[in-house]
Amino acid sequence: MKEFLGNDFLLDNEIAVKLYKNAAETAPIFDFHCHLSPEEIYKDKHFETITEAWLGRNLAGDHYKWRLMREAGIDEKFITGSASDFEKFEKFAEVMPLFIGNPIYEWAHLELKRFFGVNEPLNKENAKKIYEICNERLKTLSAREMLRQMNVKIVFTTDDLVDDLRFHELMAQDKTMPFEVFPCIRPDGVLKIDDGNFASYIDRLSGVVGYKIDSVKLLEKAIHERLDYLEAHGCRASDHDIVFTDFIKKDADSVDLILKKRLNGKEISFEELVIYRSYFLVFLGREYARRGWVNQYHIGVLRNANARLFKNLGRDTGIDCGNDREVVKGLASLMSELETTNELPRTIIYVINEKDYGAVATLINSFNDGSIKGKVQLGSAWWFNDHYDGMTRQLKTLGNNGLLSCFVGMVTDSRSFLSYVRHEYFRRTLCNVISGYVISGRYPNDEKTLEKIVRDICYDNSYEYFFKRG
Amino acid sequence: MKEFLGNDFLLDNEIAVKLYKNAAETAPIFDFHCHLSPEEIYKDKHFETITEAWLGRNLAGDHYKWRLMREAGIDEKFITGSASDFEKFEKFAEVMPLFIGNPIYEWAHLELKRFFGVNEPLNKENAKKIYEICNERLKTLSAREMLRQMNVKIVFTTDDLVDDLRFHELMAQDKTMPFEVFPCIRPDGVLKIDDGNFASYIDRLSGVVGYKIDSVKLLEKAIHERLDYLEAHGCRASDHDIVFTDFIKKDADSVDLILKKRLNGKEISFEELVIYRSYFLVFLGREYARRGWVNQYHIGVLRNANARLFKNLGRDTGIDCGNDREVVKGLASLMSELETTNELPRTIIYVINEKDYGAVATLINSFNDGSIKGKVQLGSAWWFNDHYDGMTRQLKTLGNNGLLSCFVGMVTDSRSFLSYVRHEYFRRTLCNVISGYVISGRYPNDEKTLEKIVRDICYDNSYEYFFKRG
Amino acid sequence: MKEFLGNDFLLDNEIAVKLYKNAAETAPIFDFHCHLSPEEIYKDKHFETITEAWLGRNLAGDHYKWRLMREAGIDEKFITGSASDFEKFEKFAEVMPLFIGNPIYEWAHLELKRFFGVNEPLNKENAKKIYEICNERLKTLSAREMLRQMNVKIVFTTDDLVDDLRFHELMAQDKTMPFEVFPCIRPDGVLKIDDGNFASYIDRLSGVVGYKIDSVKLLEKAIHERLDYLEAHGCRASDHDIVFTDFIKKDADSVDLILKKRLNGKEISFEELVIYRSYFLVFLGREYARRGWVNQYHIGVLRNANARLFKNLGRDTGIDCGNDREVVKGLASLMSELETTNELPRTIIYVINEKDYGAVATLINSFNDGSIKGKVQLGSAWWFNDHYDGMTRQLKTLGNNGLLSCFVGMVTDSRSFLSYVRHEYFRRTLCNVISGYVISGRYPNDEKTLEKIVRDICYDNSYEYFFKRG
Repeated sequence: MKEFLGNDFLLDNEIAVKLYKNAAETAPIFDFHCHLSPEEIYKDKHFETITEAWLGRNLAGDHYKWRLMREAGIDEKFITGSASDFEKFEKFAEVMPLFIGNPIYEWAHLELKRFFGVNEPLNKENAKKIYEICNERLKTLSAREMLRQMNVKIVFTTDDLVDDLRFHELMAQDKTMPFEVFPCIRPDGVLKIDDGNFASYIDRLSGVVGYKIDSVKLLEKAIHERLDYLEAHGCRASDHDIVFTDFIKKDADSVDLILKKRLNGKEISFEELVIYRSYFLVFLGREYARRGWVNQYHIGVLRNANARLFKNLGRDTGIDCGNDREVVKGLASLMSELETTNELPRTIIYVINEKDYGAVATLINSFNDGSIKGKVQLGSAWWFNDHYDGMTRQLKTLGNNGLLSCFVGMVTDSRSFLSYVRHEYFRRTLCNVISGYVISGRYPNDEKTLEKIVRDICYDNSYEYFFKRG
Repeated sequence: MKEFLGNDFLLDNEIAVKLYKNAAETAPIFDFHCHLSPEEIYKDKHFETITEAWLGRNLAGDHYKWRLMREAGIDEKFITGSASDFEKFEKFAEVMPLFIGNPIYEWAHLELKRFFGVNEPLNKENAKKIYEICNERLKTLSAREMLRQMNVKIVFTTDDLVDDLRFHELMAQDKTMPFEVFPCIRPDGVLKIDDGNFASYIDRLSGVVGYKIDSVKLLEKAIHERLDYLEAHGCRASDHDIVFTDFIKKDADSVDLILKKRLNGKEISFEELVIYRSYFLVFLGREYARRGWVNQYHIGVLRNANARLFKNLGRDTGIDCGNDREVVKGLASLMSELETTNELPRTIIYVINEKDYGAVATLINSFNDGSIKGKVQLGSAWWFNDHYDGMTRQLKTLGNNGLLSCFVGMVTDSRSFLSYVRHEYFRRTLCNVISGYVISGRYPNDEKTLEKIVRDICYDNSYEYFFKRG
Repeated sequence: MKEFLGNDFLLDNEIAVKLYKNAAETAPIFDFHCHLSPEEIYKDKHFETITEAWLGRNLAGDHYKWRLMREAGIDEKFITGSASDFEKFEKFAEVMPLFIGNPIYEWAHLELKRFFGVNEPLNKENAKKIYEICNERLKTLSAREMLRQMNVKIVFTTDDLVDDLRFHELMAQDKTMPFEVFPCIRPDGVLKIDDGNFASYIDRLSGVVGYKIDSVKLLEKAIHERLDYLEAHGCRASDHDIVFTDFIKKDADSVDLILKKRLNGKEISFEELVIYRSYFLVFLGREYARRGWVNQYHIGVLRNANARLFKNLGRDTGIDCGNDREVVKGLASLMSELETTNELPRTIIYVINEKDYGAVATLINSFNDGSIKGKVQLGSAWWFNDHYDGMTRQLKTLGNNGLLSCFVGMVTDSRSFLSYVRHEYFRRTLCNVISGYVISGRYPNDEKTLEKIVRDICYDNSYEYFFKRG
């Protein structure tokens, strides 16, 4: 039996322990997809309480934790409601022992241990004491300090086409930053033509570029200009929320009609939505390819599944789930369309439904063409898969169907500055999986090679993938 | 190596062994979904032979076992046919060693061990001897005695809207019953409008309520009255066979036309079926919510897949299979519709296809709203998933995506009085999964908390869930 | 820790080791589905270099390995291009250490060990040395010798309706053959009516049968005659590439119109494709049933996913992937249609997407009717599932849902004469799975029975299944 979150936790054998120590523990972190606020990083945000840092305030915060609290039977008042920071923390602490088996249990305690020096399991009894220890520590533990302690070297934020990149500019000039921060484009606003706010979004974009966007041609021009602006600020990657993967190819004139119809306030059919989106995914893919950017697709989430909670709480409040729609054919069609003209950019595909790992892993390898190591990737275990079993499954799937050794590794995909302990969790899991091949006699115990593979997956592969162009 | 079905079987480590002994072994059983006959329970059925108790006679019996016998190459004569009880038992015994890896192998031998004191593996050679031992024992081992020995406290049967609850009434008055039995409504008859017997079913229901049902309004009235009748007899849960999850919302008038069309003997389209069913699932959901009942959905079975065997043998004869249709979107739509008016009852969703565990586990948590602990549940590993790997997967999925600790636990879903050993099997698997978190350093070895979690999942959670309303 | 590919590799415990030694290691091989060339077997092909034997030359070769080389970033020149045999081998050796976790790593090294006596891990440094050792050995290690060394007893090749069976005839008369080779029909040419080459294929078939095929009636006649021809040469099995499983039943006249439309060079709709294919799958199924043949369906591959590579490289070049379309309902409809008249042949279904194992395993058992042991089978882990985790999953799924003991076992499905070490890999995995049941106390440690089960799955079940008719 291993000590709770002790030195060897998750490491099943001596090879795993050694690999973790020698190759994984001290590798720097490159978080190429997260939801940290550029403003908060630049201003070196200080949190008043552990509640603010951990659970958030009002309707901005860690909806992973909110879901669990609701399942445990806690009233919304103590989740996103009017209760005080301590009341919320106490409720969270009270139900914490119920989180057995859930990654939040392990992540939260790793955060307590690594950032706050708290080694005891949180519960109702010690909630007050731990609350005070954490709050005291937060007086000096600022946002930047959290990242510095975790050995974070590079962070990509998530940015909209209409965003100004003021804080990225300021950070680029700030010599005191112990890490680099770059923007990463999430162009969902122009793609989600079915969204109720689409027309007003296009208005905002029109305001930013300085001319009225009312045609496909002008929308392309506007996107192109904004990508130039992003590129000038160090952007080298995209990130897409791909709710469904259906793909229908139509010419620009057909798409122009759909765009105009929608801008005139009309409803469009699902087929029109697919046609419009397909066109712009291809357009964007070509832009990325030309610029040498990495394209990231997060596919298959069913958002805001619960109409009542959505009405009460809004988006990103813990009411999303994994969909089970067919994904392979549409993805293959989109990527094949880009391939036809040899304009498929480096691409990482993250899937939300564990059933899709197997097929998508086989799909990506039909698009690896030898031009660059691991050009098309199956992304790290994402969101509802981001736990020990999910990570293990994703890593083994990579090995079974392709080259695990070429994997670009872990991202936090998180809104929380404390979430970098998840990289430790991932690395332990990785070393465990890798060691398993040696233990069962499926790979030689060649320490040098094994350590290189681990280091590559922890950092070097991703650095090469994002920063060595062409 | 562990002894075959010995004290520690399935328990991989000392923590698992201790947890099972201290928290699981002696917990009572609450079987909130099964197919036992109220009449047989009331009359305290005595079985003449182990064949009758185990395999059934004619076309009523354990179709799980029948399937395996067919796969082993045994002629139907010895399965549902004219062979004698001993001939059938002998054939079953003969192929038993071939059942390696199948849960029937383990369940059957656990039943021999726990109920009949038989500790040797069944095979052709000892078939006669064991047959006689069992039959001798069955002289005193009646239906009620089987349940008493297994420490069963509460049983929910499966009842139709047209059923009279005579035997439930008699049982409620019977002071000698060592456990309680309550009805549980399965309203499939009114929902399966595409069934060839739909019109005659509505006739039967008309007879029971005393007026001719020929409109949605009167059908709603009839359902309402029958639910009142069930409630008066202690019913507090439903159970639905949800073959597909497609959902289309239409008003009562549209549904009225579909109902009338069908009652006039016309065929209806799949879309009309979906519209009709959607309407009544919402109607029933609201009825359950208002009454504080628990709603159970068993989703995704493709029934009677083999036309020839269906023609020869009829329903429930071992010719069903798991379908692989998309399930999430329809379920989300149905539940969201009920949520819109805050009328979603406590709901348990059981899936037949293992690929659906991940997504459905994320779905249920979009509907947990803090109003009650574990309000919406992913049901225990059902039917084709009801084995060691399936249970383990279901339990870990709960932990990975939500709160395993709030799980309401195991049901037999069985037609057999002997099947209660499956609870032992489940509990061993549960203790093994729980102990795994401690062994790998992912949860502290806090015995008191661990034992409470195990006891909760074995009994206390389900009792609270079904019996503590509002 | 086990020695790399040492005596006990993959065997987790003493029971597994013993089972492998006593029951699996020396069992002969019956490969009832592969892509070896009858001509190369007959002529006892000698390979000039290990590159020719392992990677192939030009666009004929092992596309499993090609995919990995592309993912590792190797230029096509060294894969299917103009580089020399040694250059290609050297590139392959260079990236070999990156293949950790992939079955190719283990298979390639097993081949080096078993056929070439090379025990060191291949890499860039020892590439030249190993290249020369292998090439020297290949002077005497001919195609037939490879099979002889692996104890192969029976091989089924893959043959087209238009193929002449000259080499099969010659082999049947060749007294020096240490194994038997039989044809196995793959009638995809007549089924893939949407293929661009369909009309010219029908022309070829017309040429072979000696009359112009321009109707369903004549196509049935031609198929029938060719099946007679195959049967006369020992054919007793089919193999189908079933890209999708949709099923629509229509009469011969409707199908005749579709056939004529297509032969007149017109495009047909997807629905027409489904109707046509459904009709001929039923026709062929009945032919197989009447002849006592085994029917094999390989379902769910999305072929040639990458348009650019397909244009450059053509078919079977490593650009296929697993699809995730719904499969159960269509399969059930097809099989049920054959059952209606009691003409369902023995059938093996292989699935490409791991998500389908569970449901298809339950489907097959709805079609086992007791007429023959294991009449309908879930095929061995195929293609993208053909690795340790995939095999383990397939074997456990069989046990969980039916009778693993009745499984007909492993096929190579390979184009390579060296690939027979995969049977060793399979057998080790099998013994490991079987031993697991004993280790955890789920099955008695009855050596005799366990050994029989292992031997049955390695060879005896398949021999009985294919060679003992009726």
